[in-house]
Formats: sequence, C-alpha cells, structure tokens
Amino acid sequence: MTQPVPSRPHFDPDCPFCRIAAGEIPADVVYSDEQVLAFRDIAPKAPVHVLVIPRPHFADVRELGADPESAAAVLAGVRAVAEALALPYFTTVFNTGAASGQTVLHAHAHVLSGNGVMWAHGQ
Amino acid sequence: MTQPVPSRPHFDPDCPFCRIAAGEIPADVVYSDEQVLAFRDIAPKAPVHVLVIPRPHFADVRELGADPESAAAVLAGVRAVAEALALPYFTTVFNTGAASGQTVLHAHAHVLSGNGVMWAHGQ
Repeated sequence: MTQPVPSRPHFDPDCPFCRIAAGEIPADVVYSDEQVLAFRDIAPKAPVHVLVIPRPHFADVRELGADPESAAAVLAGVRAVAEALALPYFTTVFNTGAASGQTVLHAHAHVLSGNGVMWAHGQ
Repeated sequence: MTQPVPSRPHFDPDCPFCRIAAGEIPADVVYSDEQVLAFRDIAPKAPVHVLVIPRPHFADVRELGADPESAAAVLAGVRAVAEALALPYFTTVFNTGAASGQTVLHAHAHVLSGNGVMWAHGQ
C-alpha cells in the first residue's frame, strides 16, 4: 500500500500569502524569521504599509488567537517591523471577515505609519 | 532593618487601565481571565467597541510584542470577545504613540464591529 502524499502542514496552495511565505510569489520583505514574514503592501494606503503574516495558514485573527506560539510571533513581528523601520508611531490593524475589509483570508497585521495614518475612529 | 514595600509587579498606580484591571475603577467587562481583561470603551466609536488589555502593564504593542505569554493572551482575548459577542466580523486596532491616536499608555486592542467600522484605509 502506498501512503498518501502528505499535505504541507498549514499550507494552502490557493492562498497568496502562503505562497509568499513559501517564496513562490516575490515580496518586498522588511522582516523575516522562522515563524513570520513582513513585507510591504503592494497597494500601500500610507507612506509605511507593511503586512505581518504568520508562515502557517490561519484564516484570521480568531484562528491565530487560538495558537499562542503564532499569535505571539505575529506581535513580535510587529515589534520587529517598528524597530527595523525606526517607526516613531504606528497603527496595527487586523481585519476579520469580508465585511470588515479583510480581502486575503490568511491572518495578517497591517502596520501603518506616516501621513494620514491616524485611525479614523480616533483614540 | 525593614524591607521596602515591594511594588506590585507590572502595576502602575497612575495608569487607568492598571486600575481597571485591579478592580479599582469599574468597567463594563465582557471577558476576563487571569491574563487579560476586556471591557467596553466608555466613549464607543462603533456599535461594538471593546478594549482588550493585558493585566500587567505594557506601554504599547511594542512592549507587549516582547512578552510572548501576554502577547498571545491578548490575541486570545480578542478571539474570546468575538465569541462572547458573536461578532460576524470585526476590526482589531492597536495604536502606538500619541501621534497614532494612542491616548492611554497601557497596551490595548480595540475590537470594533457594526456600522461604520470598515477600516478607513480599506483592505
């Protein structure tokens, strides 16, 4: 009997962020480690607009929040981006669900800084 | 010789969120565990506007990102809030630095849902 080919754990071949994490799609990387990848958004909404993704596939911050190691790694990645780019201030955003504006169903933190980045809802 | 009174670890008596976590200031709590507290914002900017804070004091998400246990606990708290309030979609925001709109220097995630919560910068 042959074994079925094991699927790559946490890898979704139809997910563009999984493919970026795997190096199959190029990205302008600003920070990388074994658990996360941070790269510039291809359609930046601010002078600094970086996405921080966990390398494994999680649909959104709800799934990410159930995995302590990856959850911690993503916030450590946000910290690493702020340090790498010497950001004096920034806003970090996770959208969850299409109605919130989430367009790629692989959890990602937007890190934004520069003109016009003040969060529209204040506080 | 008398010992100095030990300061409460990670507690800043001048920090309103430390005092909420300690029960010294009341709050409309929607989720609580040993590591985090989630309560409704007193000046909500959306139909659902909850703040998730780590119980220990961290100034912002940069400091939080350096502490894996608390970082993971805050994102688990975001997940718990979404579940407790049965949010079909939501946006999670951490502001860092006064220029980003951060007004309380104790790390906190805004969890927002409802009309007008679409993140202004899209995506």
